Amino acid sequence: MTVQRKTSEEGQGDLPWQWQETKWRAIVNKVRAGRSLRPKTWKNGAQVCVALSFDSDHETGTLRDGEDSPGKLSQGQYGSRVGVPRIRRLLDRYDIRASFFVPAVVAKLYPEEQRALVAEGHEVGIHGWIHERNSILPPAAERDLQMRSADVLAQVTGKRPVGIRTPSWDFSQHTLAISREMGLLYDSSLMADDEPYEIVEDGKPTGMVELPVEWIKDDAVYFNMNRFSGLRPHTPPSAVLEIFTAEFEGALAEKGLFLLTMHPHIIGHRSRIQLLESLIRHMRAVPGVWFATHAEVAQYCRDNG
Amino acid sequence: MTVQRKTSEEGQGDLPWQWQETKWRAIVNKVRAGRSLRPKTWKNGAQVCVALSFDSDHETGTLRDGEDSPGKLSQGQYGSRVGVPRIRRLLDRYDIRASFFVPAVVAKLYPEEQRALVAEGHEVGIHGWIHERNSILPPAAERDLQMRSADVLAQVTGKRPVGIRTPSWDFSQHTLAISREMGLLYDSSLMADDEPYEIVEDGKPTGMVELPVEWIKDDAVYFNMNRFSGLRPHTPPSAVLEIFTAEFEGALAEKGLFLLTMHPHIIGHRSRIQLLESLIRHMRAVPGVWFATHAEVAQYCRDNG
Amino acid sequence: MTVQRKTSEEGQGDLPWQWQETKWRAIVNKVRAGRSLRPKTWKNGAQVCVALSFDSDHETGTLRDGEDSPGKLSQGQYGSRVGVPRIRRLLDRYDIRASFFVPAVVAKLYPEEQRALVAEGHEVGIHGWIHERNSILPPAAERDLQMRSADVLAQVTGKRPVGIRTPSWDFSQHTLAISREMGLLYDSSLMADDEPYEIVEDGKPTGMVELPVEWIKDDAVYFNMNRFSGLRPHTPPSAVLEIFTAEFEGALAEKGLFLLTMHPHIIGHRSRIQLLESLIRHMRAVPGVWFATHAEVAQYCRDNG
Amino acid sequence: MTVQRKTSEEGQGDLPWQWQETKWRAIVNKVRAGRSLRPKTWKNGAQVCVALSFDSDHETGTLRDGEDSPGKLSQGQYGSRVGVPRIRRLLDRYDIRASFFVPAVVAKLYPEEQRALVAEGHEVGIHGWIHERNSILPPAAERDLQMRSADVLAQVTGKRPVGIRTPSWDFSQHTLAISREMGLLYDSSLMADDEPYEIVEDGKPTGMVELPVEWIKDDAVYFNMNRFSGLRPHTPPSAVLEIFTAEFEGALAEKGLFLLTMHPHIIGHRSRIQLLESLIRHMRAVPGVWFATHAEVAQYCRDNG
Repeated sequence: MTVQRKTSEEGQGDLPWQWQETKWRAIVNKVRAGRSLRPKTWKNGAQVCVALSFDSDHETGTLRDGEDSPGKLSQGQYGSRVGVPRIRRLLDRYDIRASFFVPAVVAKLYPEEQRALVAEGHEVGIHGWIHERNSILPPAAERDLQMRSADVLAQVTGKRPVGIRTPSWDFSQHTLAISREMGLLYDSSLMADDEPYEIVEDGKPTGMVELPVEWIKDDAVYFNMNRFSGLRPHTPPSAVLEIFTAEFEGALAEKGLFLLTMHPHIIGHRSRIQLLESLIRHMRAVPGVWFATHAEVAQYCRDNG
Repeated sequence: MTVQRKTSEEGQGDLPWQWQETKWRAIVNKVRAGRSLRPKTWKNGAQVCVALSFDSDHETGTLRDGEDSPGKLSQGQYGSRVGVPRIRRLLDRYDIRASFFVPAVVAKLYPEEQRALVAEGHEVGIHGWIHERNSILPPAAERDLQMRSADVLAQVTGKRPVGIRTPSWDFSQHTLAISREMGLLYDSSLMADDEPYEIVEDGKPTGMVELPVEWIKDDAVYFNMNRFSGLRPHTPPSAVLEIFTAEFEGALAEKGLFLLTMHPHIIGHRSRIQLLESLIRHMRAVPGVWFATHAEVAQYCRDNG
Repeated sequence: MTVQRKTSEEGQGDLPWQWQETKWRAIVNKVRAGRSLRPKTWKNGAQVCVALSFDSDHETGTLRDGEDSPGKLSQGQYGSRVGVPRIRRLLDRYDIRASFFVPAVVAKLYPEEQRALVAEGHEVGIHGWIHERNSILPPAAERDLQMRSADVLAQVTGKRPVGIRTPSWDFSQHTLAISREMGLLYDSSLMADDEPYEIVEDGKPTGMVELPVEWIKDDAVYFNMNRFSGLRPHTPPSAVLEIFTAEFEGALAEKGLFLLTMHPHIIGHRSRIQLLESLIRHMRAVPGVWFATHAEVAQYCRDNG
Repeated sequence: MTVQRKTSEEGQGDLPWQWQETKWRAIVNKVRAGRSLRPKTWKNGAQVCVALSFDSDHETGTLRDGEDSPGKLSQGQYGSRVGVPRIRRLLDRYDIRASFFVPAVVAKLYPEEQRALVAEGHEVGIHGWIHERNSILPPAAERDLQMRSADVLAQVTGKRPVGIRTPSWDFSQHTLAISREMGLLYDSSLMADDEPYEIVEDGKPTGMVELPVEWIKDDAVYFNMNRFSGLRPHTPPSAVLEIFTAEFEGALAEKGLFLLTMHPHIIGHRSRIQLLESLIRHMRAVPGVWFATHAEVAQYCRDNG
């Protein structure tokens, strides 16, 4: 589509296949994976590290689009009313601490939910203001929203967040600079590796830790439904369990990191929380697995990577 | 897409990420889940409640779009000619009463079908006039169509409907007020919980029962086909049976409600009615399952929830 | 989408939810399923009837869109070069006669292919001129193309076709009149039943037999791929075999018809022809199955239905 | 869509259904499959030939669209940082030589990667400049880019490429002429057969070998994900293994060629490299399988086909 538009500008010399080498090199080098931060062994000699995360979008996916449909909003409320409690009970049952990335608007709508999570040892991290899309925001607005989001989480939970997952993993040209200005320990939105790495900006190491994500390890990819597009939950839970398990087994074989992104309003449903429990049982049965929050993993990697 | 459009209005202060807290709170609070109406036990001490429903859209999905394709209309006729009779025989074989949500135009096209359903103890509920989309209707038209739809069903079946499922679960800003004005017992179009709840409007309890639906528990999601979009029946019946069974098992474990939405022109096909029969056999084998119409469930929850 | 456009015309009284009853009744009644033509038993007392068909679109799907991509055209050539020979060998091995619906342009590109099919006892039926979409053609052009298509098939094969499958099952407001004018025995493009029926036009029986199709029983639905849309072959052959087998079993249980639509350039691939062979073996093992061409089925139903 | 546009030009006599026979014959005959080049037996009497290929698109899919998203670019970097090393280790473990098709921009970004591949006996072939789409390029630009791409590969690896896989298999009206002018041994972008064939241009044999591809035998088809379209990895690895295995078994039964296209940033993930290893083990267990690069297969077919 972009290409279609660009061909009409033909002759201006600025179509991608006409770009000078300096141009495409600059684009590629803007934000880049640097040295691996995978430690020799994980904490207490663990063989594999498991970092579970839940993006508590709740109603903000709908609000962000400027929509007010009671039906769509009720799907979001499900995340808080049903999803988070089920997830908390499950994590408690298997003695696991996880990370919840929470938009500021969600923290204001459900402050008790965030406080309870922190009280139980879970991490609450930055996930934007109202699940805005960074790459279409004015840069000043992105900076303002990201900083205010951290303030809201600190006020609500009493703990200042040390990491960010950009909403929709939509990492803009400015996100890294903002996160560095805020002194964040880690980002978790990029995909250049399975293992933690140091982010490099314009060729210079930043000291910031990336805990990489991937669509493969995301519940929404398989279960999302959009009435007016072609998105459908075509993949049955058993197939998703197959994929997640294979990713974990690969991490185990390489003594690496298995990082999984989920959403309370998606994974929280009865037919899906079962798959998460099956996966957790499978992983719990492995000797030497370290379940940790993203903040713990990032800190450990920065110290030992 | 909406966002795309909105960014061009930038500076007006009315982009979602610029909204004042009062604004997004008002949107979220318009229609909301209130107290749970899940009873301690179900009727006669049953362990789990199963509410099967069939949305008899037949030809109205095509008519609603202003289309006159004989091919598409024949798919709708299949719902009445083949789907409903198969469903009736199946429900009869397992002694189950279910709910059919029927657009007024369908009731006028097939009045005998509706009368036979009522004669066999099934419920016929409101499902719009011609499967119109409420959220793009003028409010007065929505009100007029919803009221006239109830009148048509009452004339055809001799029984005034007590509940509504909005077409396409498209619940507008005005739907709740109309349903309350009509004195309906329940709505079945929202998704904030797995269990019945009282609907709250602008912070005030309404006394109206919500029997929540979900795309997960809908046959169309997995089986729909649209020649000119990307919709395809990619999920085999065995996978749909896996999902429905897991949802039922979750309801059983929580002594809750399992509510399933189907469509005669979709589930009525040979390869799919088999999956419904397998599911029913599985559920029938559980001691203490209460199969009930939506009206019976709503009434029981209002009395005992 | 259509609805979107229509709301802008609001007030004209011609939105579907404003239509008078006479209007939507006329649309629904234009082409309709009449009396069932399912015979008491099938030929020679067979318990079930199996009608396999192959739509030999080959290059015409690409040409019809006015495209000249060598890559897309090569996919079409595969249908003739590889698909049809594999299908012929398979049908020969299991002693089955089937129906091939062939656009006139394909018949002219590959006349020997059509003659060989007829020589082996298969039926060649009408499938448009260049796989045009009837519903967007001027009526006179549709009539001209349909009649000329029959002439080309008669010239090429020496046998005048007695049935039609409209390209893409795109049955226009005029298709029935044209087919009746041509004195065709049957159409195979509509979906109001699993069993053969008499087509009714504006409330009047036409004597014409419909052999109904359905997306469920079509290989393209599961296997099609379109590089620039979301179409992907997400369904593995084993799942398609599950669906086709379940449809056949349903037909067997009801002593009915199992009609399957395939395409040489789709089903002809190595991983898919295997599923067709597995299905045929499964059906061949049933005592009392009648494999017949569409023309034979239609004639039998008109005589015995 | 194309058709939609064309109908507005109605009356001009140039709609596909109005085309003269000379016109559609010329389009079909432009580039065509000629005589089969499948040899009687494969090298050293092997029963089946397996040609594995990897299209190393890395960041060029993003650059080609003129995008600079750090997130999307990081997915591309994964291909080089993680995908290619895993693939090299796997091929080494099973003693297999394969073909890598590499855009010039990727060769310049990762020259060591290409040199290592060649050092290990793998083939590096042409795959465009920046993964441009040939069919929307000016012909002179296509020619210039294709020739310069070959030069870059020769400079980087020290070996001049003998074959091409067009980016996205997007073979234009001019691709064949350019490839012939360059004296290439083979193309691998067309789909008219499972077996190698000689390409025919306007009815005349060209001497150039086609090693045909197909979407069925492509990892991207099943695993691709696009955040803003409906593309999702709905197919679990076990189902993809089923499909690839069935295609190989078909090739084995016909003593033919099994050619598979993959991408390091797609197949390189932990849950997918496992499926490739399972497939390789399955094939390695067959006596008489010849694993070869595309160049070796093309040369063997030209000499023995």
